[in-house]
Amino acid sequence: MNTDSFTSSLDAVFSPKSVAVIGASSTFGKWGQFILSNIMAGGFKGKIFPVNPKERVMYGLPVYAHITDVPEPVDLALITTPAKTVPGILEECGAKGVKGVVLITSGFSETDEAGKNLERHIADICRKENLTLVGPNTMGIICPYAGLFATGVHTRPRRGSVAFISQSGNLGNQLIHWAEQQGIGVSLFVGSGNEAMLSCTDYLVYLESDPHTSIILLYLESVGDGKHFLDVTRRINRKKPIVVLKGGRTEAGRTAAASHTGSMSGEDSVFRAACRQSGVLDVAVPSELLDLSAGFSSLPLPKGNRVGIVTLGGGWGVVTADECNQRGLAVPDIPESIIETIGKYLPPFWSKGNPVDLVGSRDLDVPIVAVEELLKWDGIDAVISLGIVGRRELVRLLIKSTRKVDSAATPAFLDQMETLSHNYEENYIARIVGLMEAYGKPIIGVTMARTDKGTVRPVDGKRYSGVFYESPEDAVNVLARMVAYQDFLERA
Amino acid sequence: MNTDSFTSSLDAVFSPKSVAVIGASSTFGKWGQFILSNIMAGGFKGKIFPVNPKERVMYGLPVYAHITDVPEPVDLALITTPAKTVPGILEECGAKGVKGVVLITSGFSETDEAGKNLERHIADICRKENLTLVGPNTMGIICPYAGLFATGVHTRPRRGSVAFISQSGNLGNQLIHWAEQQGIGVSLFVGSGNEAMLSCTDYLVYLESDPHTSIILLYLESVGDGKHFLDVTRRINRKKPIVVLKGGRTEAGRTAAASHTGSMSGEDSVFRAACRQSGVLDVAVPSELLDLSAGFSSLPLPKGNRVGIVTLGGGWGVVTADECNQRGLAVPDIPESIIETIGKYLPPFWSKGNPVDLVGSRDLDVPIVAVEELLKWDGIDAVISLGIVGRRELVRLLIKSTRKVDSAATPAFLDQMETLSHNYEENYIARIVGLMEAYGKPIIGVTMARTDKGTVRPVDGKRYSGVFYESPEDAVNVLARMVAYQDFLERA
Repeated sequence: MNTDSFTSSLDAVFSPKSVAVIGASSTFGKWGQFILSNIMAGGFKGKIFPVNPKERVMYGLPVYAHITDVPEPVDLALITTPAKTVPGILEECGAKGVKGVVLITSGFSETDEAGKNLERHIADICRKENLTLVGPNTMGIICPYAGLFATGVHTRPRRGSVAFISQSGNLGNQLIHWAEQQGIGVSLFVGSGNEAMLSCTDYLVYLESDPHTSIILLYLESVGDGKHFLDVTRRINRKKPIVVLKGGRTEAGRTAAASHTGSMSGEDSVFRAACRQSGVLDVAVPSELLDLSAGFSSLPLPKGNRVGIVTLGGGWGVVTADECNQRGLAVPDIPESIIETIGKYLPPFWSKGNPVDLVGSRDLDVPIVAVEELLKWDGIDAVISLGIVGRRELVRLLIKSTRKVDSAATPAFLDQMETLSHNYEENYIARIVGLMEAYGKPIIGVTMARTDKGTVRPVDGKRYSGVFYESPEDAVNVLARMVAYQDFLERA
Repeated sequence: MNTDSFTSSLDAVFSPKSVAVIGASSTFGKWGQFILSNIMAGGFKGKIFPVNPKERVMYGLPVYAHITDVPEPVDLALITTPAKTVPGILEECGAKGVKGVVLITSGFSETDEAGKNLERHIADICRKENLTLVGPNTMGIICPYAGLFATGVHTRPRRGSVAFISQSGNLGNQLIHWAEQQGIGVSLFVGSGNEAMLSCTDYLVYLESDPHTSIILLYLESVGDGKHFLDVTRRINRKKPIVVLKGGRTEAGRTAAASHTGSMSGEDSVFRAACRQSGVLDVAVPSELLDLSAGFSSLPLPKGNRVGIVTLGGGWGVVTADECNQRGLAVPDIPESIIETIGKYLPPFWSKGNPVDLVGSRDLDVPIVAVEELLKWDGIDAVISLGIVGRRELVRLLIKSTRKVDSAATPAFLDQMETLSHNYEENYIARIVGLMEAYGKPIIGVTMARTDKGTVRPVDGKRYSGVFYESPEDAVNVLARMVAYQDFLERA
C-alpha cells in the first residue's frame, strides 16, 4: 500500500466541491438526517445531492434514487445505509466517478468474522474503483476550511490550525465539540473508524503538508505498522507538534480496547518510550489533548523554563509557583530594576518579587506594565497572568446586586460599568497578544472562573491568540509541555 | 488561648440576627459598597445597620454615624474602614455589646512591623471587649443557612454541606464562585485572613459540631500550632472528611507564601506525611478541592475499589478503564448472568464486558438496566456512567440545525424533542440517585462536554445528588480518593 497515492487523493475527501449523502433522510434522529442536516446547516458551499430511492425532495433539494442518477460530478459520497448494501453502492460510486467515500455505516470488522470479510471485500472494491475510503464505522469528518461539517454531532468549530485524527468517533466528536466550546480553531477532524483502507499514519502524512494545520492531535487504540507510524511521527513532529492520547495504557484499558476496535493495543511502556524518543507529546487524558491544542496553536514556544507570574491575589500566586516547581519550571527572583519599575504602580507593601502580586489593582496599566517588564528581561521565558480575564464575571455579579438594591444607581451608569469591564478585558487581551508578538514569548492566562468566552481568544489580524485556562494547573501543564517540546527541537 | 471559648462564640458571627457594616458606602466599587450591597441583595433576613458618619440614608436604610448610635442590638459588625481607625471602632463595638467582628480591612501584619504591632493591639482590644474577631485582612464570610453573604465577590452558592476555610481570601472567594457555578452546596465559607485571634484550627473545631457541614475544605499557607492542628484534623477527619490544599509545597511556593502572608510554611513532605497518617485528603491543585467536595458531599462512600463502567462510546470506556487502573481502581470482568441480562437490550455485537458499551442506545431503560445490574452485583463497589447526561447538549445542536434546514419540521415537534431530551436527562438523574439510595453505592457521571447545569444535580427529597464531571479523569480521581478515605476509616 503506497501511502502517498492515498494521501494525495484525500483532497477530494477533505475539500470536495460536491457531496452526495447516500442514505439521506429527513426523518429526525436517523443517521442520514444527522449528516444531511449538518452539511446543509453548516453552510457547505458546494453542491449537495441526497440519495435515497424512497424520497423525491428533501429540505428543498431534489433526491436521487441512485448515485448514478446524479446529473453532475460528485467528489465525495457519505454513506449511512446498512452494511449489506454497501458493496453495491460502492460499485455505483465507482461507476459514477466518485473520488472519495466516508463510510459511516457500522457492522464490519468491529463485529465478527463475517464483518471482517465484508470489510476486506469493500476495501477491495474501493481499490478497484479508485475510491479513497474513510472508515467504515466512522463518525464522519469536519473540514472547516471547506465549510463541510459531516458528523453526527452538530458541532462547528471555527477555522484554525488544530487537526484531530481519532480512532474513536464518539470520543473524537465530543472532544471537537468541547474544542468548539473552548474557542479552539480546527483545520480538520477525521474519525478514522475501522481503517479498512487508510490508517491514522496515512492521515498524518496528509496533514504533514496541509497548510492549515500546525498541530496534530491523535486518539489511538492501535497502530497497524508501528515502525512506519513512529518513523512518520518522528519526521512530522519536528515541524508540527503531535499530541497523542493512547487508549489501552493499562490492562483494563487494553481489554476495553480489544472489545471496542477488536485490535490489540500492545505494550504501553514501549509505545510511550518511543513517543518520548520522537518528541511526540503523549498525554494521559482527553482534556489534555484540548489544553495542549489551545496553547500550541495560539502561543509562541518558550525558549526556556523560567516563568514570571503576575497575579491579582497572593494565594493564586502561591499555588501557581508551587505547580511550576512541581513541573520542573523555575520561578526566578527578579532584579531590583524590575521591582522598582513595577513598584511605582503599587502600594509600598507589595510582594516585591516573583510572583508579582498586584494586590487587586484595577488600573489596566498595572498588569500590562508588570507583564511587559517581565517579558523584557532575558531571565524570563514565559509569563503566567492570573485573574485579569475572568474578573469581568465578578464585576457582572456586583452590578447585578447593585441593580437590585440601589435605586439611585441609574441603569445607564451600571450599563457603562459593564461595558467598561468588558472593554477592559478585550483591551487586556489585545495588549498581551501585542506583547507576545513584540517579544516572542508566551503569556498564558488563567481565569480562575468559568467564563462564557472559552479558552482561546483570537485577536483580529494577529498571529497569536490570548489563551486563558480556568485553573493554574492547566496553564502550568501546557507551559511545561511546550518547554519540553522546544527542548526536543533544540536537541533534535 | 482556649479554643472552645472562641468557637462557641462563633455562632454570633456565622448566624447573626443583626449586622452592622462599618464603613458602609453606596459608592459603586468601594469595599463598603461591595459588602453592604451583597448582604442586601443576598436577602439577609435579619436587621442591617449601615454605619458611616458622612451619610444619612443608604439603599433606603437609615445610616448611623457610629455603631453606638444604632438603637437595637448588633450581633455582628463587618468593618471596612482604614486600619488606623480600627482600634477606636473596636472599642465602640465593645461598648455597643457587639459579639463578633469580621475585619475586612488590610494593612496589618501582612505589611510591616508597625502593622504587626497594630494587629496585636486590636487583638488585645477584642479580647478585652469580648469580641470574636475574624481577620483582619479577610475577604469576608458566606453563611448560606443564615442567608448572609458578606464577601467582596457577589457569589451566592446554594445551601449544602461543604464548608471552606481559606487563608487566602481571593483564592477562597473565587473557588466559592466556581463552586456555585458547579452547583456545589455550601454550609460556610470563611476567609481567615491574618488570623489575629482565630486560627483555621479554631474554625475546624467550630465545624466539627456544625450540623450543616459534612465535608471541610482548607486552603492553608501556614499553621501556627502544627501539633494542635494535626490532633484536631485527625479527630474531625474520622467524622467529616477534610480536604487540604497546602500552598508552599515547593521552594517557589514557599517564597511566594512568605511574601503573601509573611509566614513560613514549613516542609511540605513533613506536612503531607502527617496528613496521610491522619487520613486527611491532601490535594495538589485548587480544582481538586472542588471536585472532591462535589463527590464527598453528594455520593455514598464506595466500600471497595471495584468499578463498573457504562459508556455510550467505546473510546470513552477505554480511557476511563485506563484511568481507573492507573489510579489503583479495578475494572473487574463481569459474570455471564449480568452479560445476559444487559445483552437483552443491546445488539448482538456489543462489548459483552466491563466497560459496558451501550453503543449509542437512545432507550432510557438500557443505561438504567446496565447501571443497576452492575450495582446489584457484590463484585462492584461503584459505577462510572459516561455520556447520558450531557448528550442533551448534542441533541440541542441537532435540533438547531433541523430548525434551520427543515421547513417541514414543525416548531412544536422540535420543541417536543427538546423537552424529551431534557426530561430524559432529569429522569436519568432521578433514577440513578434512586439507585444510589437503594444500593448504597456511588454512581459517578461524566458529561464529556460543558453543560449549563453544573457538576452537582440535586434531586428533591433525596439524600444523595447526581454528580457529573466533565472528564473521566476527574471522576476517577474523586472515586480513587473516596476509596482511599473509606479505606482509612476502616483501618482507623
